[in-house]
Amino acid sequence: MSDKYTNGLGKAVANHQALSPVNFLKRSAELYPNKTAIIHGNERYTYSEYQQNVNRLASALQQHGVKKGTTVTVMAANIPAFLDAHFAVPMLGAVLNSLNTRLDAENLAFILDHAECDVLLTDTAYSEVMKKAVALSSRTPLIIDIDDPQSQGGDRLGELEYQQLLATGDPSFVQPIIEDEWQAMALNYTSGTTGNPKGVVYSHRGAYLNALGNNMIWPLDENAVYLWTLPMFHCNGWCFPWTVTAMAATHVCLRQVEVSAIINSISEHNITHMCGAPIVLNMILNGPEELTQKLTGSVKAMTAGAPPPATVIKGMEKLGFDITQTYGLTEVYGPCVASSWKQEWDHLTSDERAALKARQGIRYPTQEDVDVLDPETMLPVPADAETIGEIMFRGNTTMKGYLKNESATIDAFKGGWFHSGDLAVKHPDGYLEIRDRSKDIIISGGENISSVEVEGVLYRHPAIMEAAVVARKDDTWGETPCAFVSLKPGEHATQSEIIEFCRENMARFKCPKTIVFADLPKTSTGKIQKFILREKVKNLFENIPETA
Amino acid sequence: MSDKYTNGLGKAVANHQALSPVNFLKRSAELYPNKTAIIHGNERYTYSEYQQNVNRLASALQQHGVKKGTTVTVMAANIPAFLDAHFAVPMLGAVLNSLNTRLDAENLAFILDHAECDVLLTDTAYSEVMKKAVALSSRTPLIIDIDDPQSQGGDRLGELEYQQLLATGDPSFVQPIIEDEWQAMALNYTSGTTGNPKGVVYSHRGAYLNALGNNMIWPLDENAVYLWTLPMFHCNGWCFPWTVTAMAATHVCLRQVEVSAIINSISEHNITHMCGAPIVLNMILNGPEELTQKLTGSVKAMTAGAPPPATVIKGMEKLGFDITQTYGLTEVYGPCVASSWKQEWDHLTSDERAALKARQGIRYPTQEDVDVLDPETMLPVPADAETIGEIMFRGNTTMKGYLKNESATIDAFKGGWFHSGDLAVKHPDGYLEIRDRSKDIIISGGENISSVEVEGVLYRHPAIMEAAVVARKDDTWGETPCAFVSLKPGEHATQSEIIEFCRENMARFKCPKTIVFADLPKTSTGKIQKFILREKVKNLFENIPETA
Repeated sequence: MSDKYTNGLGKAVANHQALSPVNFLKRSAELYPNKTAIIHGNERYTYSEYQQNVNRLASALQQHGVKKGTTVTVMAANIPAFLDAHFAVPMLGAVLNSLNTRLDAENLAFILDHAECDVLLTDTAYSEVMKKAVALSSRTPLIIDIDDPQSQGGDRLGELEYQQLLATGDPSFVQPIIEDEWQAMALNYTSGTTGNPKGVVYSHRGAYLNALGNNMIWPLDENAVYLWTLPMFHCNGWCFPWTVTAMAATHVCLRQVEVSAIINSISEHNITHMCGAPIVLNMILNGPEELTQKLTGSVKAMTAGAPPPATVIKGMEKLGFDITQTYGLTEVYGPCVASSWKQEWDHLTSDERAALKARQGIRYPTQEDVDVLDPETMLPVPADAETIGEIMFRGNTTMKGYLKNESATIDAFKGGWFHSGDLAVKHPDGYLEIRDRSKDIIISGGENISSVEVEGVLYRHPAIMEAAVVARKDDTWGETPCAFVSLKPGEHATQSEIIEFCRENMARFKCPKTIVFADLPKTSTGKIQKFILREKVKNLFENIPETA
Repeated sequence: MSDKYTNGLGKAVANHQALSPVNFLKRSAELYPNKTAIIHGNERYTYSEYQQNVNRLASALQQHGVKKGTTVTVMAANIPAFLDAHFAVPMLGAVLNSLNTRLDAENLAFILDHAECDVLLTDTAYSEVMKKAVALSSRTPLIIDIDDPQSQGGDRLGELEYQQLLATGDPSFVQPIIEDEWQAMALNYTSGTTGNPKGVVYSHRGAYLNALGNNMIWPLDENAVYLWTLPMFHCNGWCFPWTVTAMAATHVCLRQVEVSAIINSISEHNITHMCGAPIVLNMILNGPEELTQKLTGSVKAMTAGAPPPATVIKGMEKLGFDITQTYGLTEVYGPCVASSWKQEWDHLTSDERAALKARQGIRYPTQEDVDVLDPETMLPVPADAETIGEIMFRGNTTMKGYLKNESATIDAFKGGWFHSGDLAVKHPDGYLEIRDRSKDIIISGGENISSVEVEGVLYRHPAIMEAAVVARKDDTWGETPCAFVSLKPGEHATQSEIIEFCRENMARFKCPKTIVFADLPKTSTGKIQKFILREKVKNLFENIPETA
């Protein structure tokens, strides 16, 4: 080819800059300075104040040595400091490592060590577990306590409080230029099939694009008011700290995901948008009538994870909610598939509509490809709503990879696609619908639980010989862990004893809700046949014998 | 820094792909195959058929040698073939060069030569001027005539007709992978201050981002129906061929931008969105009542160029139009600044609202920076609505540069910003408002006219001694060229004679509408003081003496 289209047409400051969601705040602060950016209890921050806090935090962290590649870990509820961190940390080229507040001290310590945490911002509400976690870990991070006035927090663990830290910062700090959009900016740990969580690394480019993708399939504008029912630690709140800020909409913080707090916030702040696991919808739907009667407006709710049952969708529609079902994983920046609604479905019965809404859907325009492939041949399955394959992703909103785990990354990306581990069919209209999971993951209340981890705890019980954990459908939680166990000869144990043992040895949300005493079906080579247990669990009655 | 955030976290097929607007069609064809993509008269194309035509065109062009870096020039009205070309040409790595259908043969020939046109797709409606242009140029491109059934077209210039070409193509052609998002994909010529137009080169990355940016500030969804009142040759239709397709909305083609065709299309197809120069709004507003009474729906109209007068905005609102004023230039992919509406303005009087709407506005989130700078110091002017500076842009939706004109590119990008040449103030709320243009450009009916070019023609008139052309405000056209001329001693000429002379020597839309006989004010060094003429033109009466 002639060189005319390259000569003298290189990249320059004027025409090429790194894509980064960090820049969205700069624009909103400049163009909507007096607009309310954040509401938290009685606190209000305009976009100008939001940016000043972010600037203070960034410059203060820089003074403490935070720079490109530093891991800054945050353990917090959905509070303003966490929103600040979503901009201040990546602004410095550092990496925001958000902790799941429901994890136990052992898991948290593993993450502090693995992520090589240098700075820890920790909400005093979690100081008990974090104190243990820091003690268990080999790290000695700079600890900054966030003593949120909206909380009856616990002890302080460090010497600096968040507001004190901000006071040392410069509100007009000049944001350093992000040179490389491929640079790491966030680190989120996900439960895998093995006991130890894997650290999913996000780039500036990917987060920028998924933030825009959210808005393309679920538009917000500057009049939107977004309620933080979704934990910000989940895939960086599905990238919504950046989406909401890009659109100069209003963030409404929420410490407690609890029915009266949710409904009161919706009513008081005229919430227009919110996200969350189906459990959040359930809580609202089953809320007391003196609360639900306050719901007079229209709220768009994005949900992901196990699809909400048709009754929940119908009930929520009656309460004024417009539900969009989405699908994603930590590895793809949260949701990047949405069950986009088509006008031609408007006339269908409510059952038919609920069934369509419960499908996982179609990819965001910002993810280049999502398909259901046969993992053996890597060919797409026919779009016949019957043939099961594995959901795979490729494009710019797929993680950089797993931190310090190249073999897992290579494995996850084999054949040029990210392998989700979720088994699905493709409908004739291209919409995906999950049928099962190939990985042993149980999703309960929006949280991933590794069945292998639960089994590991069960095996430590002195009376248990064998254990296998599968998901059991649950109207409230979506799924709960159900353990099939066999006891050692001559040993005895009750359901309650085993559940109590689990509670002592792992985070409460991971504990089996059901224990079934049974011989475990096996293959000829001795491998437990979980698919038989999954069939069995469908037919379980409510009353399960308390003892073997 | 530790290498943990780079080791084993490189780019791979699964997590990094070139950003290209070409990929939007793939998604819409896959997920909305039976949705109407294009309406043109009685023709209808679903998204599946649209992609098949694009595939046919791409494979047929490839058979004719089109590859990375080839220039494919299109001279066409807003017809399906032009939409096809917006995907098929860049899909091959080739460059889509769109011609302004209002140019004269000399200008067109210059472009064919400068762009090194290899393939020319030409609507037979323009065969007369294109025949001359090809004859004048030194190129011998492969010519494909587009013989649109909706047109009473002229002669065919080549041996292949568009439908014949498509018939030789493969509808299931596999799209080559775009390796580099910085690669050139489009070439649009803009009138500069000098006589010869400059070729503005777009990248895949920039077009992708501006296509998304359009949707962020002016949302469309798959139920949107977009009327093609804006010429597709203008900055690739402001990137809307890609935006509309990304959202799986419907394109409604329009050969003639003429009042009955526009209003009938709006009414017949329930148009929801359209773009165009203010002249288009004017045409609708002044349309005969038997037509305008058909306008019963609500249409979102994006306009750019000279802001529409308050009366036009108010009148259009009464007809059900919601006007969004935007601003941009060819060099920034069309509009990337929008006069975004704020709810707090809803209660203002209609005059106040029109004044706010007429401002150019604030940058799209996808353009990193737009500001009003003092071109001497390169510092931002105060946001006082008074201090005039030059509008400058930087970010990812700024052109790669000017084709084969590195010095002009360097000049345009000096100081790390693209210099627009437009003079503006910044309001305290950050909204830009244009006050004047530093370049000698007149914008008439949405077309840029170089005053230098018009002066060049005037100077060729035997009776004219000196000439200076400035913009004159016009209710219909926004601006029209107004020429101040002085005659050589002893020579005589009338207004009409001079205008007629201009018509014979350049495209009609560029000809002065007004000729004023006067001595031209000059600086001590002999430079004509155009600012004095611009003041004078404001006070011109309708009746200007026909002779000197």
